[in-house]
Amino acid sequence: MWIDLNVDAGESFGNWKLGQDEELFPLVSSVNVACGFHAGDPLTMRRTLELAQRAGIAVGAHPGFPDLVGFGRREMAAGPEEVYADVLYQVGALAAFLKVAGMPLHHVKPHGALYNRATRDAPTAAAIARAVRDYDPGLPLVVLPGTPLEAEAQRLGLRTVAEAFPERGYTQDGRLAPRGTPGAWIHDPELAARRAVQMVLWGRVEAVDGGVVPVRAQTLCIHGDNPQALAIAKAVREALEREEVAIRTY
Amino acid sequence: MWIDLNVDAGESFGNWKLGQDEELFPLVSSVNVACGFHAGDPLTMRRTLELAQRAGIAVGAHPGFPDLVGFGRREMAAGPEEVYADVLYQVGALAAFLKVAGMPLHHVKPHGALYNRATRDAPTAAAIARAVRDYDPGLPLVVLPGTPLEAEAQRLGLRTVAEAFPERGYTQDGRLAPRGTPGAWIHDPELAARRAVQMVLWGRVEAVDGGVVPVRAQTLCIHGDNPQALAIAKAVREALEREEVAIRTY
Amino acid sequence: MWIDLNVDAGESFGNWKLGQDEELFPLVSSVNVACGFHAGDPLTMRRTLELAQRAGIAVGAHPGFPDLVGFGRREMAAGPEEVYADVLYQVGALAAFLKVAGMPLHHVKPHGALYNRATRDAPTAAAIARAVRDYDPGLPLVVLPGTPLEAEAQRLGLRTVAEAFPERGYTQDGRLAPRGTPGAWIHDPELAARRAVQMVLWGRVEAVDGGVVPVRAQTLCIHGDNPQALAIAKAVREALEREEVAIRTY
Amino acid sequence: MWIDLNVDAGESFGNWKLGQDEELFPLVSSVNVACGFHAGDPLTMRRTLELAQRAGIAVGAHPGFPDLVGFGRREMAAGPEEVYADVLYQVGALAAFLKVAGMPLHHVKPHGALYNRATRDAPTAAAIARAVRDYDPGLPLVVLPGTPLEAEAQRLGLRTVAEAFPERGYTQDGRLAPRGTPGAWIHDPELAARRAVQMVLWGRVEAVDGGVVPVRAQTLCIHGDNPQALAIAKAVREALEREEVAIRTY
Repeated sequence: MWIDLNVDAGESFGNWKLGQDEELFPLVSSVNVACGFHAGDPLTMRRTLELAQRAGIAVGAHPGFPDLVGFGRREMAAGPEEVYADVLYQVGALAAFLKVAGMPLHHVKPHGALYNRATRDAPTAAAIARAVRDYDPGLPLVVLPGTPLEAEAQRLGLRTVAEAFPERGYTQDGRLAPRGTPGAWIHDPELAARRAVQMVLWGRVEAVDGGVVPVRAQTLCIHGDNPQALAIAKAVREALEREEVAIRTY
Repeated sequence: MWIDLNVDAGESFGNWKLGQDEELFPLVSSVNVACGFHAGDPLTMRRTLELAQRAGIAVGAHPGFPDLVGFGRREMAAGPEEVYADVLYQVGALAAFLKVAGMPLHHVKPHGALYNRATRDAPTAAAIARAVRDYDPGLPLVVLPGTPLEAEAQRLGLRTVAEAFPERGYTQDGRLAPRGTPGAWIHDPELAARRAVQMVLWGRVEAVDGGVVPVRAQTLCIHGDNPQALAIAKAVREALEREEVAIRTY
Repeated sequence: MWIDLNVDAGESFGNWKLGQDEELFPLVSSVNVACGFHAGDPLTMRRTLELAQRAGIAVGAHPGFPDLVGFGRREMAAGPEEVYADVLYQVGALAAFLKVAGMPLHHVKPHGALYNRATRDAPTAAAIARAVRDYDPGLPLVVLPGTPLEAEAQRLGLRTVAEAFPERGYTQDGRLAPRGTPGAWIHDPELAARRAVQMVLWGRVEAVDGGVVPVRAQTLCIHGDNPQALAIAKAVREALEREEVAIRTY
Repeated sequence: MWIDLNVDAGESFGNWKLGQDEELFPLVSSVNVACGFHAGDPLTMRRTLELAQRAGIAVGAHPGFPDLVGFGRREMAAGPEEVYADVLYQVGALAAFLKVAGMPLHHVKPHGALYNRATRDAPTAAAIARAVRDYDPGLPLVVLPGTPLEAEAQRLGLRTVAEAFPERGYTQDGRLAPRGTPGAWIHDPELAARRAVQMVLWGRVEAVDGGVVPVRAQTLCIHGDNPQALAIAKAVREALEREEVAIRTY
């Protein structure tokens, strides 16, 4: 058995530093690198790839809405043609740094409000999937399973990678508990680790409102921007390895 | 005999339109497409490539300083590492749209203040040349001959393409007459056309301050953002074809 | 009888020119000047005020979402605190240029998607109104009548200015016909002029789906970014003056 | 005897945090608040003023070049008209937040590369000074004494405030030792404190290359973005108070 652990990375911008890339990279198997629209800048992208190369982990593109001040977390009414072009632009920019570093582009995972919108809105999902497919039909797209993002990607023949969130609460209908509601975030590393094991071994997790929900997971996301990220990543990794689940990428 | 005619393109931004791409493209053999830092945006880049594909002309990247409000025309004290990463980012972004369109990336030509700085400052020139070489050592770089940009590119083993400007005045030392000085711009299409012929057939042109200066040219640049651009491009093309000089790219 | 005619202005950005400010200003009584977030830049703002001063017309601030590439026309999920601060920032920036020019800040009118959102979403409307009230409680806010923007502004004690659109279609429920639906735009200057007269003299206008809807108007908006703007502004002005309606601001 | 202690503030941007405003504000008498061009955003500006108000310290505007990714530290060839308009825009934006908070605009101090350029280039200095004078002729401008910035401001009748840098090395000609040269930065809080006392009591300081140089100072700058900022501010303040120099603003 195996599972991928992913974390967002390269989220600094110019003089502003964010995240613990250097400490987190050895604990995960893949990273999603910001491409300059919601975070990241050319120099930061380059340095992030150097860190990833040294850690021997896989690098994917993490395109977001063009909203630096909002960190790509504010939904924008960008039309499908804009989303398509924005994703393609960001994927290409990262791909250039990967090419120069001699590294493959491993996957694409949309960021923040763009990802969220694609889990609810089929045209947005289709625009993202088309951009990935047109760029490279063999490029995997990370998706929240059971959403339009998964459906549209599969309809276009893309390989999808189902993502689960051990540190996020799930509602009984299998969706993520909205931020700000009780149980939306797990702060205890040991609890996050137990949930990661449940997800991987048994394909399910306890819901915030009682009961157990099925969860499909080929990759587990650790949010790099919370203070416990490092402790959670360590605990999740160790708990999985104790169960003889290998941490490796797809 | 042959010569390339190039024009900057894709210089619109969002709701703002600039240039006469549709009319100019059939008159030239290559275009330099803005990549989002000084002009251009993802949708504009995509549409520009569609126009170029229809016109059957070659597309190069036109990276500039990150200065939208200044249109990349204000020199910025960006260090070599920043220049390297900025060029690589922009080249990669355009390359993604080309890949999807099934078109090759034909060349790189730096824009505005970045180009000017590279004609005077060897570290800037070397940073641009390294970015192009690292991305693709076979990619030609358009240069002002006799400047550090040409020298650094050749030192790194890049193929350089010497550029001349039939609508710009030259001083006796072979440099471009500074904007704002008398004779810096040629507005008469027929005069520009005669100068283009002089440059291509005889390798020289009249200087603004009298005398004749040698000019090496593998590509002639028509500035798309002046009102006479279309008339100049037509006159230059017709005059060259009358002399049995083919308009085709390198 | 009198009515204000307003037009958006100062919508150029750096090297990109937009609109017909010079020709339109003598035809209207007030302008809404872009403040740098969706259009406009410091130099453009300054030049726009010079034109307005020469034309002797009133200048208001036209704050928008921070989305240059989308021209502020894409709805963004900015929270009320962000909207409050964004509006205050833009109003202050314009106010500095007005202060230097010796001109008063005449009104505030939100732009594009920010305006539209405030006509449907009370928290957004309240955030805009609070920013205006906190900056200057005597500053009029231009509103679409019958919407949360009007209600929230009046609840905070602001003076509101009801706006109507002679060149836009109205549905029977008194709202603007959505862009892209039949009759959403009036392109015939004479028809727009007749509608302006109907609105001002009789307080009503024909709906796109038949019948007549009541319209309250203290200011009429002419969209500067359509090709007929000049002809429409002229026709509207002449038709109103024929009816002895003075064109002057509130 | 008294002296002002100033620190740059409000240098966060969106999701990115920078500086130790909360800890530093009680130790200084005035702050220079970033206005959105090189750092800062509307929400950050608002929160920074709340902190300053609570600490009871004076707030000035800190306009910079429009270069977020470069933090305003890269010289840009902006012309005088652009500099004038950029400064006015930023001053106005901050002034709106101050007005709403019921706080006066206390001073203007240019940031980074804009400040540096104004200490060498008279047209840039004059453009800054004109913007300040046109906005409010009573507004003090912080200057490096003996430079064009001081001269141009005084020529326009502005009140200037001479600034010195206890944590920066000075060369024998009274200029700041260039960053990167030996002694350019003082990292020892006690040494910085001794130098602050020398500057204030005796009007001179030891130069990096030996000897003693005269220094005029009405305000001392502590750089908030270095790790020792807090310790240096504390040591400087305590050393000055031991010498019965009051820390208060001009």
